[in-house]
Amino acid sequence: MSQQLRQRLFAELDSLRLTDPHTHINPLAPAAKTLADILGYHYYTELAHSAGVPREAIEEPGLDPREKVRRIVSGLAPLSNTIQHSWLMEMARVFFDFQEPRLTESNWERLYDAAAAKMAAPDWENQVLKRSKLDGVFLTNDFDDPLAGFDTRRYVPCLRTDDLVFHLDKDAVRQRLEKATGIAPSDAAGLRRAIGKLFEHFTRNGAKACAISLPPDFSPRPVDAAAASRALAAVGKAGASADAQSRSDVGHFVFWTLAEFCAEFGLPFDLMIGVNRAVYAGGVFQGQDLYDSRVSLIQCRELFNHFPQVTFPISVLASVTNQELASYAWIFPNVVTNGHWWYSNTPSFIEHDAAARLEAVPRTKQIAYYSDMYKLEFALPKFAMYKRVLAKILAERFVIDRGWSEEEALALGRQVLCDNTRRIFGVA
Amino acid sequence: MSQQLRQRLFAELDSLRLTDPHTHINPLAPAAKTLADILGYHYYTELAHSAGVPREAIEEPGLDPREKVRRIVSGLAPLSNTIQHSWLMEMARVFFDFQEPRLTESNWERLYDAAAAKMAAPDWENQVLKRSKLDGVFLTNDFDDPLAGFDTRRYVPCLRTDDLVFHLDKDAVRQRLEKATGIAPSDAAGLRRAIGKLFEHFTRNGAKACAISLPPDFSPRPVDAAAASRALAAVGKAGASADAQSRSDVGHFVFWTLAEFCAEFGLPFDLMIGVNRAVYAGGVFQGQDLYDSRVSLIQCRELFNHFPQVTFPISVLASVTNQELASYAWIFPNVVTNGHWWYSNTPSFIEHDAAARLEAVPRTKQIAYYSDMYKLEFALPKFAMYKRVLAKILAERFVIDRGWSEEEALALGRQVLCDNTRRIFGVA
Amino acid sequence: MSQQLRQRLFAELDSLRLTDPHTHINPLAPAAKTLADILGYHYYTELAHSAGVPREAIEEPGLDPREKVRRIVSGLAPLSNTIQHSWLMEMARVFFDFQEPRLTESNWERLYDAAAAKMAAPDWENQVLKRSKLDGVFLTNDFDDPLAGFDTRRYVPCLRTDDLVFHLDKDAVRQRLEKATGIAPSDAAGLRRAIGKLFEHFTRNGAKACAISLPPDFSPRPVDAAAASRALAAVGKAGASADAQSRSDVGHFVFWTLAEFCAEFGLPFDLMIGVNRAVYAGGVFQGQDLYDSRVSLIQCRELFNHFPQVTFPISVLASVTNQELASYAWIFPNVVTNGHWWYSNTPSFIEHDAAARLEAVPRTKQIAYYSDMYKLEFALPKFAMYKRVLAKILAERFVIDRGWSEEEALALGRQVLCDNTRRIFGVA
Repeated sequence: MSQQLRQRLFAELDSLRLTDPHTHINPLAPAAKTLADILGYHYYTELAHSAGVPREAIEEPGLDPREKVRRIVSGLAPLSNTIQHSWLMEMARVFFDFQEPRLTESNWERLYDAAAAKMAAPDWENQVLKRSKLDGVFLTNDFDDPLAGFDTRRYVPCLRTDDLVFHLDKDAVRQRLEKATGIAPSDAAGLRRAIGKLFEHFTRNGAKACAISLPPDFSPRPVDAAAASRALAAVGKAGASADAQSRSDVGHFVFWTLAEFCAEFGLPFDLMIGVNRAVYAGGVFQGQDLYDSRVSLIQCRELFNHFPQVTFPISVLASVTNQELASYAWIFPNVVTNGHWWYSNTPSFIEHDAAARLEAVPRTKQIAYYSDMYKLEFALPKFAMYKRVLAKILAERFVIDRGWSEEEALALGRQVLCDNTRRIFGVA
Repeated sequence: MSQQLRQRLFAELDSLRLTDPHTHINPLAPAAKTLADILGYHYYTELAHSAGVPREAIEEPGLDPREKVRRIVSGLAPLSNTIQHSWLMEMARVFFDFQEPRLTESNWERLYDAAAAKMAAPDWENQVLKRSKLDGVFLTNDFDDPLAGFDTRRYVPCLRTDDLVFHLDKDAVRQRLEKATGIAPSDAAGLRRAIGKLFEHFTRNGAKACAISLPPDFSPRPVDAAAASRALAAVGKAGASADAQSRSDVGHFVFWTLAEFCAEFGLPFDLMIGVNRAVYAGGVFQGQDLYDSRVSLIQCRELFNHFPQVTFPISVLASVTNQELASYAWIFPNVVTNGHWWYSNTPSFIEHDAAARLEAVPRTKQIAYYSDMYKLEFALPKFAMYKRVLAKILAERFVIDRGWSEEEALALGRQVLCDNTRRIFGVA
Repeated sequence: MSQQLRQRLFAELDSLRLTDPHTHINPLAPAAKTLADILGYHYYTELAHSAGVPREAIEEPGLDPREKVRRIVSGLAPLSNTIQHSWLMEMARVFFDFQEPRLTESNWERLYDAAAAKMAAPDWENQVLKRSKLDGVFLTNDFDDPLAGFDTRRYVPCLRTDDLVFHLDKDAVRQRLEKATGIAPSDAAGLRRAIGKLFEHFTRNGAKACAISLPPDFSPRPVDAAAASRALAAVGKAGASADAQSRSDVGHFVFWTLAEFCAEFGLPFDLMIGVNRAVYAGGVFQGQDLYDSRVSLIQCRELFNHFPQVTFPISVLASVTNQELASYAWIFPNVVTNGHWWYSNTPSFIEHDAAARLEAVPRTKQIAYYSDMYKLEFALPKFAMYKRVLAKILAERFVIDRGWSEEEALALGRQVLCDNTRRIFGVA
């Protein structure tokens, strides 16, 4: 009974048109050109590396795409259990009519060629968007991105601010800020003006969110202008070797100022909480970050209280923080749950975390899912994974356990999966 | 198979007579007078506020009950997914024959009037108790409660001690203590005598437990009499502006003294661990508290070792602490698991937490559930939620996975749900 | 459907031959002699004590085995819900044809006598190994174990190092080290030589792993030779009353040196992370340890980076650390998930934790299970518990949710349950 119910619910959820509220798509090259763009996704390179493929083999400079794929495929067998591998095979099946259950050293070239042929079509990007039922795709833009050359209604800009908050002690970042804004800030007021310019530029170009990822020990706090000016001077002089307090003060001042501009410009501020960068220094590109799960949303207490007019869509890296997220979204009007991030983006954690949210957070305050993808082809299998879990939860915990009708359950699914994303970020 | 098995087990569990070992019932007004007493429960006001209803609309002074209900109902739609909403609808169905799946702006008046009519019956309180199969209801009494004017076998007093431990630096609290005991303590010995008077008063009036809620950073420790006397003097002089060490010493001295009197008077000491008060200062009444889930029962190590003769029924606020609770109850003879508290009182957390307890904690050391209610009408839907989850666990994890008979499974359910509560607290 | 599928998968998994990669078996007395050796397992004594049996009754010196069993059986009823009790009853059924659902004061003597008769057979050890399908059993050897008098292919030595890292400030431990190695180390170089001797002795005698259990606050770090020499001198002089820094430095120096020798000798280094010893001082033997679940694998960051050539099979005590473990094994090539330890070795935590690993950690990097047993009879029911959970996960999450064939699912089960253990530890 439950199996067929899940199937029916999934089929309905799978027919919905989607907006993907967080990705790393390059709007100038959104779709893959070869299978190397797919297998080069850090999930495959890092897992293959973890299972034994040397980093040098994967990251050899000037590697031909076909050879790169051959090398990664040689390390795929140990990953065949992972959900990430299932994304790959579902994508191969749906987009490239590849029916094999696994990609092996004896069959990968067939997929490589089939994919290359399809990807060469001038409308491949559109084909992928259409087949994936994607109406809009949020980007992750550097603060100095010109935001030119693409349709910002399809590819929605998002101001990513990690560099400003955590790396303003680097000369290169300050120079980029100056170049982007025409301001070389020497005090808090100047820094504030420069940041304001970024918000003007971004919102003028259709940006619908500001975003940042935060390490576990970050606790937002205001920094007064005098202290910020002093700290900025110290950082301007000594760069990354400035004292820790000054570097911290600059970062916190920038962060708080971002929140102020989110209030002024009406932008939601996506917080992605809990990542430690470069924990495994010997890892592959984008495969070095891990975390300390001892983090609490209490660290954002002052922030949430101070900015009631800013919506904070929150992602947490570890499932052990999910109950706090559900509870804070249940209490704070400006806190919204947002997707299933990275190390928590696997079915058993999604099931645990989404079930907790669906039964205690107002249905209007949940953004069910984003793909976090680098190439368009990944939206389909990643959203499909989520929708299967959602169908399971709706079937088991709402229709069966709570006696809901299928229609009511689907309405809930539709709201968290589609409607809320559009409403909260203000996209069509 | 599993579905019908769950149904059968639920039906049996649902026929049991209950003692509710923790509530906030006012024994002089235990049942609701209008639907405003139901919808005024903080779960509805805080969730409606979180989803957009202004606090001022909900908490306007002198608001007519009917108008208050109208305003909260206007904010209910976004909560229709929550388990809290399902409590409301189950209550409406069972007590007021209201068959609609949701309470809306077009049907709420019908429920309001139906409820008002029923609630006006002189024996409404008894009707609710009978229909809910409640034999006894534990209270949460201020330390200076006269405990007069009600049947203490039906409404069992419980000495709640948060004010004494955390707010003795307030003049008002010290004055209440003096008024209640005739003692204005100027040193540790006097404070001890005053607390002893409270225990005498409470146990003489049928109290069966002492209780307190603790913030995540509280680690019980003894304070010697000299230090406590000095601290009390400092607090007596400067009140809430006394130094932090003195205020902490007074609190810890009181806490430890409470445990000593629990030993002397044979009262279990309920610890409710992990809440931070007033995190969201702009929240509605009773809708401001949240938590930092980074708490450990190791903080109570000295307490549990020092008081082997005191039973500590422990509630934890966050599900991530549940495994520690199960482990500590598995090892310490004086630690007992107690219910599913507040932010963990939703089906998916209950399922996760109760399953872990049922398979590793001695069956005699588990108090399955309490309602935490403010009005009697809530016991029925809250216990029903718990019993459905318990039936699911017993069906899936005991009858199916471990081959238990239904009778054995029910005996386990009966023990944790009914027998243990009565035995541990010593009620009939 | 799912039920029968689980049965079929379990039957296949249950037919596999096993190597048990972590136990506390005494190879000179591997099997039980009487039922007292079974009921004396700390799970029964500590749970019975927690449920009311006085420690003195259990641990009375010179207690006759039959009387000891009688006393523990008198406290078993409150444990009949626990999974530990189910191990006992499965063992009784399989090995001793005891068909009762519970062990009671009226039937235990029948089991005692039946067990005594079977255990008296000269080949009882072999009968148990054969019935349990055990090819190899890893030991936990003190560093000064002579490793003589047993077949090290059947009982595989493992160098347990807690004493060296945490108790070298004790005279007795330093004397044992001197006796075992002929070296009374007076500086870092000497200590290093002594430890090297232990590795030579152990690997010459077939050791396949080094192992240690770590408290939650332990963060491995290198200590330079000069500091280590100074610290060793301080500890040599003052023993356990040496200053904390010296004692810490000695411990960390030893730990880091162990990792260096693991690299040199090609031994995996099992880390069992998170236990606090003697939290409940009044507990029974081996029933005093608990934990603070606030621990993170980030504490091992430097260790994992510094020793890429050492394989670290990691066990975590609390389920809340399992996601970190899965993530670190997903990223670090040298981190491997290892079993379900102690307080996490119950079905609901195993289900939660194993599911997360199986869907995100390379299948080659998971050691599914070890028994942690003290007597051979426990391998069968403990592995059976695990295999039932594994069958459930494979059925529900792979065959049903992901469309895998039963053969594929079984191949995954076989790999994590059998093949990886043999390959990672290098046993036949």
